[in-house]
Amino acid sequence: MLRNSNMRWRLPLICFVWEIAMIVLFGIFVRYNDEADPHWPIFMKHENITSDIENDFYFRYPSFQDVHVMIFVGFGFLMTFLQRYGFGSVAFNFLLAAFGIQWALLMQGWFHTFVNGKILIGVESLINADFCVGSVCIAFGGVLGKVSPVQIMLMTLFQVTLFAVNEWILLNKLHVIDAGGSMTIHTFGAYFGLTVAWILSRPKLKQNNDKEGSTYISDLFSMIGTLFLWMYWPSFNSAISYHGDAQHRAAINTYCSLAACVLTTVAISSVVNKKGKLEMVHIQNATLAGGVAVGTAAEMMLTPYGSLIVGFICGIVSTLGFTYLSPILSNKLRLHDTCGIHNLHAIPGLIGGIVGAVTAACATEGVYTAEGLKKMFHFEGEYADRTPSIQGIYQAAGIGVSLAFGIVGGTVVGCILKLPIWGDPSDENCFDDDVYWELREEDEEEHLGAA
Amino acid sequence: MLRNSNMRWRLPLICFVWEIAMIVLFGIFVRYNDEADPHWPIFMKHENITSDIENDFYFRYPSFQDVHVMIFVGFGFLMTFLQRYGFGSVAFNFLLAAFGIQWALLMQGWFHTFVNGKILIGVESLINADFCVGSVCIAFGGVLGKVSPVQIMLMTLFQVTLFAVNEWILLNKLHVIDAGGSMTIHTFGAYFGLTVAWILSRPKLKQNNDKEGSTYISDLFSMIGTLFLWMYWPSFNSAISYHGDAQHRAAINTYCSLAACVLTTVAISSVVNKKGKLEMVHIQNATLAGGVAVGTAAEMMLTPYGSLIVGFICGIVSTLGFTYLSPILSNKLRLHDTCGIHNLHAIPGLIGGIVGAVTAACATEGVYTAEGLKKMFHFEGEYADRTPSIQGIYQAAGIGVSLAFGIVGGTVVGCILKLPIWGDPSDENCFDDDVYWELREEDEEEHLGAA
Amino acid sequence: MLRNSNMRWRLPLICFVWEIAMIVLFGIFVRYNDEADPHWPIFMKHENITSDIENDFYFRYPSFQDVHVMIFVGFGFLMTFLQRYGFGSVAFNFLLAAFGIQWALLMQGWFHTFVNGKILIGVESLINADFCVGSVCIAFGGVLGKVSPVQIMLMTLFQVTLFAVNEWILLNKLHVIDAGGSMTIHTFGAYFGLTVAWILSRPKLKQNNDKEGSTYISDLFSMIGTLFLWMYWPSFNSAISYHGDAQHRAAINTYCSLAACVLTTVAISSVVNKKGKLEMVHIQNATLAGGVAVGTAAEMMLTPYGSLIVGFICGIVSTLGFTYLSPILSNKLRLHDTCGIHNLHAIPGLIGGIVGAVTAACATEGVYTAEGLKKMFHFEGEYADRTPSIQGIYQAAGIGVSLAFGIVGGTVVGCILKLPIWGDPSDENCFDDDVYWELREEDEEEHLGAA
Repeated sequence: MLRNSNMRWRLPLICFVWEIAMIVLFGIFVRYNDEADPHWPIFMKHENITSDIENDFYFRYPSFQDVHVMIFVGFGFLMTFLQRYGFGSVAFNFLLAAFGIQWALLMQGWFHTFVNGKILIGVESLINADFCVGSVCIAFGGVLGKVSPVQIMLMTLFQVTLFAVNEWILLNKLHVIDAGGSMTIHTFGAYFGLTVAWILSRPKLKQNNDKEGSTYISDLFSMIGTLFLWMYWPSFNSAISYHGDAQHRAAINTYCSLAACVLTTVAISSVVNKKGKLEMVHIQNATLAGGVAVGTAAEMMLTPYGSLIVGFICGIVSTLGFTYLSPILSNKLRLHDTCGIHNLHAIPGLIGGIVGAVTAACATEGVYTAEGLKKMFHFEGEYADRTPSIQGIYQAAGIGVSLAFGIVGGTVVGCILKLPIWGDPSDENCFDDDVYWELREEDEEEHLGAA
Repeated sequence: MLRNSNMRWRLPLICFVWEIAMIVLFGIFVRYNDEADPHWPIFMKHENITSDIENDFYFRYPSFQDVHVMIFVGFGFLMTFLQRYGFGSVAFNFLLAAFGIQWALLMQGWFHTFVNGKILIGVESLINADFCVGSVCIAFGGVLGKVSPVQIMLMTLFQVTLFAVNEWILLNKLHVIDAGGSMTIHTFGAYFGLTVAWILSRPKLKQNNDKEGSTYISDLFSMIGTLFLWMYWPSFNSAISYHGDAQHRAAINTYCSLAACVLTTVAISSVVNKKGKLEMVHIQNATLAGGVAVGTAAEMMLTPYGSLIVGFICGIVSTLGFTYLSPILSNKLRLHDTCGIHNLHAIPGLIGGIVGAVTAACATEGVYTAEGLKKMFHFEGEYADRTPSIQGIYQAAGIGVSLAFGIVGGTVVGCILKLPIWGDPSDENCFDDDVYWELREEDEEEHLGAA
Repeated sequence: MLRNSNMRWRLPLICFVWEIAMIVLFGIFVRYNDEADPHWPIFMKHENITSDIENDFYFRYPSFQDVHVMIFVGFGFLMTFLQRYGFGSVAFNFLLAAFGIQWALLMQGWFHTFVNGKILIGVESLINADFCVGSVCIAFGGVLGKVSPVQIMLMTLFQVTLFAVNEWILLNKLHVIDAGGSMTIHTFGAYFGLTVAWILSRPKLKQNNDKEGSTYISDLFSMIGTLFLWMYWPSFNSAISYHGDAQHRAAINTYCSLAACVLTTVAISSVVNKKGKLEMVHIQNATLAGGVAVGTAAEMMLTPYGSLIVGFICGIVSTLGFTYLSPILSNKLRLHDTCGIHNLHAIPGLIGGIVGAVTAACATEGVYTAEGLKKMFHFEGEYADRTPSIQGIYQAAGIGVSLAFGIVGGTVVGCILKLPIWGDPSDENCFDDDVYWELREEDEEEHLGAA
């Protein structure tokens, strides 16, 4: 029996009701912060700022736009490698991100910029909302092609909520550093997505392996996503670092790590193939692992060669994961991970957390200057006495918390999504746009150039 | 009888003569402004500026580049949805925009930055030229596939001229605010294009509906355009706002409006389809209406929830337009609008004008501060006594003027383009690159993956 | 006999060994500069800088990201026009650039920012590394489809080395201006690539002309590369200009030149075709020649109309080159130039060098101000007495040196690459991804939509 995957009432209802809820909540809570409000000139005088150029907008807007491209074009096109699921990949990613950023502005606002009953937003809020949604895009990669848009919307709602709580615990309670989100975005997002994918597993899915493959053209579309992610990752990891040297350094470290990662990805891709031929899936994904793994430490004194080492290792680990680990997970654990987020986000995310913990623990005043050390790790107020080695321990704890949030949260949300009322596709319709998209008759047969 | 659509002498002649005219006019008139001239250090001292970073270049260049991407990749690829007209879409858009920005630098320069017989240009001039050309790209969407490159060049020449006059009337005579161009760019551009399309209507065009369709691959190419437009729209609406809080606020409002618009677009797209399936044409276009409709008010105190409301409404109106209004216009009024610019630019542009007028009329010193209100609406000099409610009336008048300029100008230009000497394609060759492009033999039959 | 093009050990070995070498050399030499180091606040005090916004990061990072996109998406996708070599185009470009930027950071660092035994890097170093790699991407266009990834890696190693030496001679010994690299990047890169291509020439290659062609879809992918190169070229030519007016002016000049170039490209493309039809290869390539040819003079007082003239000429010359010169080079000189780099980079690069020399020679204190003239041409220290006309002569010498470096260097490197041990493809496998990529069975036959 074919399930009822007709979206006609469920999807519109969710979109309308939730968007109206957003409007009401924004109306009650969301206002501009001092730098986006006409009171800015008064704020300038008060803060002794002499030029408009010191508005945070000019420090962060270029990075924001790069991050924005990563979320919508980067993740959206990266997932178009599926030959018959290009519309779903790029457009459902679009939908979830457009909803997710609104909800994230609220959730993160309540935790971080809630003043006198109002959430005050500015360019940094937009970046943080995009970051939060990034974790949903990651999780979406695990269930790609196997869920309905209604399930995607539900997952987004819950995951953004959990993200905000986890982030708050890490940043405000454990007081850890995670500017590029190795822990909050990648570890949490990937393990959340993998757990959901595991709970929604479809034991009989294997028949339609043909639809799950890529074609020559779909692989090229996917490379658009890869390259925009790769190129703009320095902006991602530096977008919310503190002004000046930290933003500068985070961009340099990420640039270095990503460059090294490409070489080891190519090396492993060639060596694991009998004829030494490269596989596009490795180039599309594992080359990005270096960016994930410097997410926590990018703004620290990781040094350029330290960054190269991280990228070097991640290219190897990630490519080996695609080659050897994914088949095992799929066959032995019934963990079907459409985009291989385990190899691209989960393991590199964990590595990134560890790299961050070690780099933090090794920090010295000699390297950072006394003032710099305080500034870097916010050793102020109640944390004034924290030492780098203690900081390292808290950083490590942050990995555990993110992992736990991902797995426990993913379990709960996975069970909710498993209810048979959300219109998910039958096994034979997985990875096929035809279920949720109005296609021309020819296109139903002839997708992305597949004969 | 096939018309003579051979471009061999007409197109080169126009390109050469006009480009030489540009060189001569630039030679006579165009110079660098104070911020792009070696006299900048002297200007700095004179203006008491202490750092190079306060050069307008650093305030606006990132936004300029984003706008540039919207014009060339955004509009160019958005129109590649036609299965056999990909070259024409992306390359004729390239041609018209490359010519248009030069002519716009002159036209807008004469009106706005003409000092001592010279037009002084800087980064803001480049943005304004891109904006002006944006209105031509919009109009091009209405006649896409039905005109020759010579007609496109003619249309660009006339439309840029009219744009500059209309803009001058709005900004300098009516003294209205329209930083993101709901009125000057979208309303004017769309109604101009629609009028031209209506005058050039081809009653017998319906036969080749097959060529007018999209394919799976052409729809994915089109999504590249959609996403770059969507992502960079916050830069578009904030690019020429005044420094500091206005740029900041315009970006936030546009971000919010666009996010809301995606959800209602998806909702309506699903609900109007019998099986609840989504249509790609809605996602490609209607999701952008929210950006159009906050073009006038983005830098005002529209508030984040106000922006959500505008996006909410525009997603609905635009998607309904594609579903119900376009067929009526096409069948009843013989108004064939290839890209649906009526739904994406005309109506949302009108809404944007109205939203701007209302937001302006509601402005108070309590919200903007006394100083902020003056700055926002330029209540200075001869306009020092204007009140917000009077401003609202002038804003509303700006809508009417733009509409009139679009329709009257479009009528005149349409009649000129209707002359049978410009090499337009015969009906059976519409929407087919084969007329103006040297294609490989296979490609003449087998375009974008269409079987 | 089929050559052994199996990469299984050679490619991984090179990638691993070289990346380890990078790590070691970075460990010994590379550190952050003052603006990316936690000592930045101390540096600020020392230099009397009052705000973080004056960190060089904020002057250059947006331009850096644009350049980054040009190298990876621009060049990568530009070369995807080959119907069966899309993977190789985009991914080998990715590989060579990722390695090249690391090696360039070292080579350029030793020459330019070597202080107390350490190379100090910052955002400008990243831009310069991308620039250096740009010259390799250009050369890669000449040999595209005819070499193995191992040969590409070797070429990158040698070319980056030679680039750095040539650049050092031009900038430090001849003391010339070349901010956008008409000489160092384009002239050197193109003649280097052409010489290598000539030495590696394959007399029997002509049979597989079918594989060398493009398809409708591959041409559209290629336009993604073209447009990102075209749009971001103003950032390329202004990225390392001095702060303030020079960056501003360089962007304006490049914008103008590129706009003019599009019109003459279209004109010539139409006029050389019997039926007046346009060819996509011209639009993809010759429209960019205007950016190449203002690479040296962009930051000088070239004036907007001077820029239009340069673009005007280059569109003509480049398109004529594609039409008439390329076939001659290929048939008479056995110089097979896959992407036509002779027309896009070599000749426009030479023109750019000449334009730079003339513009420099014509510089006057009246136009630049006395202070501005010194600043523009660095007439300081031992060069304090140099006059503009002398500068013009040195600029011209820079063209000759770059040309010589390209040709002599290309000869040596070409001979090394000609050794039969690097796994290059047999003639019948040229321009075919199947040699180095694991393709699905269908895809081996059916590439980019080619029937």
